[in-house]
Amino acid sequence: MVLLQASTEALNYTWILMVSFLIFFMHAGFAMLEAGQVRSKNVANQLTKNLLTWSIGVTVFFLIGSGVASVVGGADWAAAYMASGLGWIDWLYGAVFAMTAATIVSGAVAGRAKLRAYVTYTILLAAVIYPVVIGFTWSASETGFVEIVTGYAFADFAGGMIVHGMGGIAGLTAAAILGPRMGRFNEDGSANVIPGHSMTFAVLGTLVLAFGWYGFNVGTSAIYGGDGTFMAEQLGRVAMTTTISMAMGAIAAGAVAWFQTGKVDTLYVANGLLAGLVGITAIPHTTAWWGAFVVGILSGAQLPIVFKFVETKLNIDDVCAVFPVHGSAGVLGTLLYPFVAAPGVVSNVGGAFIAQAFGVFVIGGWTLTATAVIWYALKAMGEARVTPEHEQEGLDVSEHGVETYPEFGSGDSVVADGGIMTEDIEATRGSKDD
Amino acid sequence: MVLLQASTEALNYTWILMVSFLIFFMHAGFAMLEAGQVRSKNVANQLTKNLLTWSIGVTVFFLIGSGVASVVGGADWAAAYMASGLGWIDWLYGAVFAMTAATIVSGAVAGRAKLRAYVTYTILLAAVIYPVVIGFTWSASETGFVEIVTGYAFADFAGGMIVHGMGGIAGLTAAAILGPRMGRFNEDGSANVIPGHSMTFAVLGTLVLAFGWYGFNVGTSAIYGGDGTFMAEQLGRVAMTTTISMAMGAIAAGAVAWFQTGKVDTLYVANGLLAGLVGITAIPHTTAWWGAFVVGILSGAQLPIVFKFVETKLNIDDVCAVFPVHGSAGVLGTLLYPFVAAPGVVSNVGGAFIAQAFGVFVIGGWTLTATAVIWYALKAMGEARVTPEHEQEGLDVSEHGVETYPEFGSGDSVVADGGIMTEDIEATRGSKDD
Amino acid sequence: MVLLQASTEALNYTWILMVSFLIFFMHAGFAMLEAGQVRSKNVANQLTKNLLTWSIGVTVFFLIGSGVASVVGGADWAAAYMASGLGWIDWLYGAVFAMTAATIVSGAVAGRAKLRAYVTYTILLAAVIYPVVIGFTWSASETGFVEIVTGYAFADFAGGMIVHGMGGIAGLTAAAILGPRMGRFNEDGSANVIPGHSMTFAVLGTLVLAFGWYGFNVGTSAIYGGDGTFMAEQLGRVAMTTTISMAMGAIAAGAVAWFQTGKVDTLYVANGLLAGLVGITAIPHTTAWWGAFVVGILSGAQLPIVFKFVETKLNIDDVCAVFPVHGSAGVLGTLLYPFVAAPGVVSNVGGAFIAQAFGVFVIGGWTLTATAVIWYALKAMGEARVTPEHEQEGLDVSEHGVETYPEFGSGDSVVADGGIMTEDIEATRGSKDD
Repeated sequence: MVLLQASTEALNYTWILMVSFLIFFMHAGFAMLEAGQVRSKNVANQLTKNLLTWSIGVTVFFLIGSGVASVVGGADWAAAYMASGLGWIDWLYGAVFAMTAATIVSGAVAGRAKLRAYVTYTILLAAVIYPVVIGFTWSASETGFVEIVTGYAFADFAGGMIVHGMGGIAGLTAAAILGPRMGRFNEDGSANVIPGHSMTFAVLGTLVLAFGWYGFNVGTSAIYGGDGTFMAEQLGRVAMTTTISMAMGAIAAGAVAWFQTGKVDTLYVANGLLAGLVGITAIPHTTAWWGAFVVGILSGAQLPIVFKFVETKLNIDDVCAVFPVHGSAGVLGTLLYPFVAAPGVVSNVGGAFIAQAFGVFVIGGWTLTATAVIWYALKAMGEARVTPEHEQEGLDVSEHGVETYPEFGSGDSVVADGGIMTEDIEATRGSKDD
Repeated sequence: MVLLQASTEALNYTWILMVSFLIFFMHAGFAMLEAGQVRSKNVANQLTKNLLTWSIGVTVFFLIGSGVASVVGGADWAAAYMASGLGWIDWLYGAVFAMTAATIVSGAVAGRAKLRAYVTYTILLAAVIYPVVIGFTWSASETGFVEIVTGYAFADFAGGMIVHGMGGIAGLTAAAILGPRMGRFNEDGSANVIPGHSMTFAVLGTLVLAFGWYGFNVGTSAIYGGDGTFMAEQLGRVAMTTTISMAMGAIAAGAVAWFQTGKVDTLYVANGLLAGLVGITAIPHTTAWWGAFVVGILSGAQLPIVFKFVETKLNIDDVCAVFPVHGSAGVLGTLLYPFVAAPGVVSNVGGAFIAQAFGVFVIGGWTLTATAVIWYALKAMGEARVTPEHEQEGLDVSEHGVETYPEFGSGDSVVADGGIMTEDIEATRGSKDD
Repeated sequence: MVLLQASTEALNYTWILMVSFLIFFMHAGFAMLEAGQVRSKNVANQLTKNLLTWSIGVTVFFLIGSGVASVVGGADWAAAYMASGLGWIDWLYGAVFAMTAATIVSGAVAGRAKLRAYVTYTILLAAVIYPVVIGFTWSASETGFVEIVTGYAFADFAGGMIVHGMGGIAGLTAAAILGPRMGRFNEDGSANVIPGHSMTFAVLGTLVLAFGWYGFNVGTSAIYGGDGTFMAEQLGRVAMTTTISMAMGAIAAGAVAWFQTGKVDTLYVANGLLAGLVGITAIPHTTAWWGAFVVGILSGAQLPIVFKFVETKLNIDDVCAVFPVHGSAGVLGTLLYPFVAAPGVVSNVGGAFIAQAFGVFVIGGWTLTATAVIWYALKAMGEARVTPEHEQEGLDVSEHGVETYPEFGSGDSVVADGGIMTEDIEATRGSKDD
């Protein structure tokens, strides 16, 4: 038998396929994470949104979004249906990142957005909003937009800003325009906690996401460079920094909870782990080992602070904490790039920081603006939000005609006590026994 | 250090191992999908059947089934225990497909089949029924049976008919002979809905299955052909068509639900996504990009229609909708082969269709006949079905001596209202508040 | 375009990355398996411990444990932060095995250990206890400790003793010192069953673990040996023996339950499947195909026997049965090495058995001693166990300030009836209707 040699291209594409599958699996993680954090009367709504985000979004990205990205990036129109073979693998690889950005939003608008409003927004995100972002950055034909303006390249390895920061900002914007769930805030602006229905599903989702995230971050590195270089240094560094930042995010968020309340809130730890992953996602390939500690600690520690700020100062009902987890952590990690890099990576710290800040501004500004226009339009048409009766009844019944747990629960989903991400844990628990 | 070259064979087998692991993980998907769709009193029964399908089935396929397949396929007896090294990897790769076919049946017979009846059937399926099917097709030593008869090769890339169509037909046959669950149909033939106990587990299972399905479909392609050709075209096409058909299946089934009831039934969307995957499974390597849309739309749209037909016309209690998801979608996709193919793939449309139809007929006829003989025999011996008392009490207690949720629920599992796959959503919900 | 050749090194590391991700995903499996087996009032505590085991443990192993292992193994201090590139991939690969050992303990001490006690122990395990074990075995610079003493090499391919046996012994030791949960045993030494809150999560965890285990066992084999040999024989054998032993473990444990009670306890089957996996983990590369049947049957069959012995004779409350699943099955498989090996593998059966027994003794003795010292010290400081009031209330509230299922359940978690791993199934069920 003739011994045939495998090419670097074939090994690269084998890897790309495997990590694309892993990143696709993150939809199971998002579905569980979000389902666990909503009331039982809204679980099926959350699950359906996740299924439709993928199904509708990936179709739109195939037909339109991939073409828009190519044009914005400076190339001729090249939608995915015009591809073949490896071009379709490249498309799938791009699509699973795009759909990650899209699905983040659903957690912020849980419990009161109309399904048709959410679907409309998802279509526009997949067709235009996200493709414009990557057209400015990843799919730039020659020199990226940020580099043209600032003179320095914008560093976002796996989408810390492009995917997660963008998704978190979109979610926060949509949640702000939509308004909070009934009973979430009192007339004096103080907040009530509406605990999710299952911590188990939330933590399951967290761990599924972390699993897929290895594909997201490490899988953004090729095995071989185009010149035949084995990317050992990059692969190893990304694997290490991703692991350390994730770990420190969980520890830091848990520690903050412990300092504040004397208890280690499970959801802080889980969301802190995710924030640690988000924080490193822009810069896993350049960050020093000690820098991964810094990124993870800051990403985890900012979570409860930003969550409380959004809740008590802005009175925005970001149900699944998508802004502190994806938005602010993504921005933070992107901005930290020059300060935590391994020696020799960044020659001009100031210039690099300006490029990062300008990239954050452009992506954030575009996302916020486009999202605001769409949701204000939906609101003006009376299409953004379900009726108070339907919200009270739950979206599972009003939007989907189903009951998630027909054999369990009281059926009366009320604003209840619970300790999720609240500093009034003991106080609310005390009221339980009334 | 000497730089050693990796061979195409080693890369192929690395890929085969990874996708085999993914396909194995589909058992977690089936377990969750089925558990979510049954009453809480029957969950442990469903979980146990899934664990035993894999454990018993894979053992039987190792000792007997693999040998039967080789003999039916025209080779000498070659059971898996006679293999070594790569032969065992090939066996595992075949076994995870075989066990997918086997586990489909458990969803159809939920809630009333005796465990020993199900296990008996699983043993015979793994030892004979499925091995005969693959002996006629995949393991044919020279020319497959269908080709000998029709003059045209039978196209079933990853088992749209061989695995899923076969499993769906087997499930429907077993469910028909077993009879419906108590209270499922009224004396006038009208149907009552018995909603599953957890939409969350059902959707989790759906997404786990979709994750594993990438291994199932894309993993059916080698990375390198035997002549050293990098299979880039095939890998890319399969990845693309699998993604598009899955997406369109979910959208089409959801759209049908929405047209019928004004609501987007979560379980329709989830099962539609799976039907889209099943539909493309026979033909992902040849279907044009627009053909993937056709296959997905038809596979998703037929789901509610076939489900209602089976329910209201045949009065068969196919608990987890395995026939519309795996059976009819598998048959449909297999038959669509010549009509949705990329240009140049099919030279004789009529001949190709005859081969596909004959293949469906042979596999379907054999599966239906063998399954009917076994379940009628079990029924005649009084071994097919648990007693009405045990069915009322739930199979978790009577067959397994356990309670799945000892702290939740009323303990009285009754035929209840709910909107799963019913057109009477509003009517049944209205009755809830009585 | 120049066709570039992939190296064996790059293929090996692609494989190592993928299997490391799979092994990391086992944390989701452990989290679900353990959560399902505890009362609903202790679920969040179990989930948090799993998140923190990974987060804290991997950090400690990065900073300290990897260095300790290198020194104990006879090399200079080489902590992971001193590595780069492939060294970090090697570290991650080692870390996911280390964290598997660590997380096993949490299932044994469920429902009454203080979080800070568990975290303290986890830190010491990751820094010292486990590194010493691998320093004696896997990271031995030249000749391993066991070989120096006995003259024969210690065979533990993927950590049947080093990871699982060690974790199971540590768990049992900690559980013994901690004492049982309130109400677990009566004054006369007889046992009460405290059933877990969700069989569905327990089985989900089982299947996630089995999925990851393919990475654990098959992934312990390189694709290519250092001399450029394609490890086809080893890869195939490990895939086969792992599959068969897992299957037989489930069947054997289920059969024992059926013989004892006439019912097939779901949790026996699930834990038996895991015991079958543990049993083969030390020796998947050398065991004959028939030997895999032997290992699986014995590993599964010992499960109920050892569980009952620990429960009724030792009165140790090993909540998630980690000793019978990981401890005794790991020891058993390690000791079976010379008796189930393929022809030609073991030249001196007696010598090989002595080496295996001595390895078990050294690892088990070290683990038991170090664990006992730590937990006795924690107990002496009054830091090992929560107060009876907190235990009654549940650790979710007292340690984490959260409620896992705020909408479900009575809130009164009492010692209840149920059939989990008890021979008194009918008796306890009878009492339910009181």
